[in-house]
Amino acid sequence: MSFPKQVRLAEMSPRDGLQNEPGPVISTTLKTELIERLADCGLIHIEAASFVSPKWVPQMADAAEVMAGIRRKPGVRYTALTPNLKGFENALAAGVSEVAVFGAASETFSQKNINCSIAESLERFMPVMEAAKQHKIPVRGYVSTVLGCPYEGDIAPAQVANVAKALADMGCYEISLGDTIGVGTPLKAKRMLEAVAAEVPVEKLAAHFHDTYGQALANLYAVLEEGMSVIDSSVAGLGGCPYANGASGNVATEDVLYLLEGLGIETGVDLKKLIATGAWISKKLGRTNGSKVGQALGQRTGAA
Amino acid sequence: MSFPKQVRLAEMSPRDGLQNEPGPVISTTLKTELIERLADCGLIHIEAASFVSPKWVPQMADAAEVMAGIRRKPGVRYTALTPNLKGFENALAAGVSEVAVFGAASETFSQKNINCSIAESLERFMPVMEAAKQHKIPVRGYVSTVLGCPYEGDIAPAQVANVAKALADMGCYEISLGDTIGVGTPLKAKRMLEAVAAEVPVEKLAAHFHDTYGQALANLYAVLEEGMSVIDSSVAGLGGCPYANGASGNVATEDVLYLLEGLGIETGVDLKKLIATGAWISKKLGRTNGSKVGQALGQRTGAA
Repeated sequence: MSFPKQVRLAEMSPRDGLQNEPGPVISTTLKTELIERLADCGLIHIEAASFVSPKWVPQMADAAEVMAGIRRKPGVRYTALTPNLKGFENALAAGVSEVAVFGAASETFSQKNINCSIAESLERFMPVMEAAKQHKIPVRGYVSTVLGCPYEGDIAPAQVANVAKALADMGCYEISLGDTIGVGTPLKAKRMLEAVAAEVPVEKLAAHFHDTYGQALANLYAVLEEGMSVIDSSVAGLGGCPYANGASGNVATEDVLYLLEGLGIETGVDLKKLIATGAWISKKLGRTNGSKVGQALGQRTGAA
Repeated sequence: MSFPKQVRLAEMSPRDGLQNEPGPVISTTLKTELIERLADCGLIHIEAASFVSPKWVPQMADAAEVMAGIRRKPGVRYTALTPNLKGFENALAAGVSEVAVFGAASETFSQKNINCSIAESLERFMPVMEAAKQHKIPVRGYVSTVLGCPYEGDIAPAQVANVAKALADMGCYEISLGDTIGVGTPLKAKRMLEAVAAEVPVEKLAAHFHDTYGQALANLYAVLEEGMSVIDSSVAGLGGCPYANGASGNVATEDVLYLLEGLGIETGVDLKKLIATGAWISKKLGRTNGSKVGQALGQRTGAA
């Protein structure tokens, strides 16, 4: 066992959390306020927007306005998803700190989700990688379906390792490993990480685990034991499939932070402020707070 | 690491799950149907009732009728909580397979919850222990607040070990260690277990973890690594504090089973049937299903 002393929390709520939110398009000011509050909690890595076609993701249509509207806090990186060169150029113009590209570990998922093979998706990112290098913009890589695919079921750890290595070789400074549908369990997560870490050092990896089956914290604990030191999460558990009531997606940042504090791992994030932020955005969106810590401590605060 | 090959799931829903249920008293037939369905899922240890004063726990007033009404399945133990000799005699007359007594690891919690010191509570159980021995009825011991107390905060692992040892010395065949308010995290759970296991062999211990802060599965994973092989849980996460909407109590059996299956640990329990049972009882009680696995797979089934 070698728990990290510090963990960086990469906050997904403004992008992964809001992109599938049903109902009317969320206002730009609500998004910028969320991002500013998150930074005020001590989060230093915030995925703020996605520069994709508004036809695909209407909730992210105001990505440039969001980036322009944020009161920036020194030391915080504001990242954005950029699937292609056009997205990258728009993100660059909007002043992002870094960008992210995404591939899948499952061939079928890649086809169904982004209409191309894994190899084709990696090729498509090449112009983004080159432009990013030119402009000295760090690029983060996502690999989805690392612990299971809705179409293929189990995914071989070696396949995850291959895609992660390809992204690292292309120049991604960090590879975030996504259990997109939340089906993983701890030993699977551990074995997957071991396979990937044989190709890409664990210091360059992040865990992006969804909590759909309630396993996310157990899985995180298992990979923390292996030295994983970057965790993606979303305040109030924002995200997931909005059409299935209660079907959760991203693991809640509050719950991850509570776990980390219990393990004596530092993050620099203020749990009390984070709980307040989770309660605030849940109320604004009319959603049930998806964080159990938020519910438990929020209620205690409310009752006091 | 030494994961157990098999785990016995001790199902808490008919007692710990229903005892605080708000609203009208649940019918005896619904209780017996729940118990029969749980046995049909393959659960072999079901806490079916509590022989306490109906003034304290109105939902358990029909404990004798519940025990009499169950169509017994061979090989299943039907247990009941018996805080005193009168409760034991009633439970014995009702034909329970085993009984349970409960102490606290926190002096203040003991005073506030059962109006006596820890030492006094153990003394009170002596007549129950003696009567049980006479009638060859196994006695299970519960220790509450093992990972934290709402009044005292942290609880010293040595204190938990003392109470667990006292119950074992009195003749309890198994000691269930309860994180009553769900505040524990994995390393705390591990350290607590190590302290207790130094006094009472791990084979005689059970983990009874609540999921109030979302940490239960991570904590269970940590104690499974230490060889814990009995886990208390409640289908659909029934239980918890009914007055605080969403404040969960018992960890959901479905979620625990999903974890165990992922770890390759056998239980003899059928996940599909269990999910159906959780969905059924949640609907009957008008409660949100507290199991994430139940929500995820129940919906998938519903959508198919």
